[in-house]
Amino acid sequence: MYLAKIYVTLKPTVNDPQGLTIRGALKTLGFDSVVDVRAGKYIEIKLSGDSLDAAQQTVKEMCRQLLANPVIETYRFEVQETAQPGPQ
Amino acid sequence: MYLAKIYVTLKPTVNDPQGLTIRGALKTLGFDSVVDVRAGKYIEIKLSGDSLDAAQQTVKEMCRQLLANPVIETYRFEVQETAQPGPQ
Repeated sequence: MYLAKIYVTLKPTVNDPQGLTIRGALKTLGFDSVVDVRAGKYIEIKLSGDSLDAAQQTVKEMCRQLLANPVIETYRFEVQETAQPGPQ
Repeated sequence: MYLAKIYVTLKPTVNDPQGLTIRGALKTLGFDSVVDVRAGKYIEIKLSGDSLDAAQQTVKEMCRQLLANPVIETYRFEVQETAQPGPQ
């Protein structure tokens, strides 16, 4: 059993209204030290597989086919083996 | 200048419809090895500050006051110093 942690972020040149909104809210709350905010997605996937290499390949395919929009987003991920094969 | 990377996830007992939807979509695409999917938020914040300690304290307050809903979410973050003080 493997656990993949996937981070999907907007490319630096893409406008990020969610990040701007968060920045505005933080400023309103008095956090004047905020310079920039970028919002992204964080996805944890548990998957079965024969090897770490195979799991990494599978996760890469998931990102390409579904999780990230390659036009405006980039992704990175890490896969680690977990001990228990049962449900959480 | 500091860069904070913040990960906000739903608590394990909280229902995650977004994660279930992603899981369903992955299964439909043929990724039969998927066992579980949890969706969360990933936020990058650039902030100024006098010290790493102060920046960490500020980010913790941001999480408590705005970024995470303590009823259903947990958060973790890491803060690192960045070289350039100018805009990205």
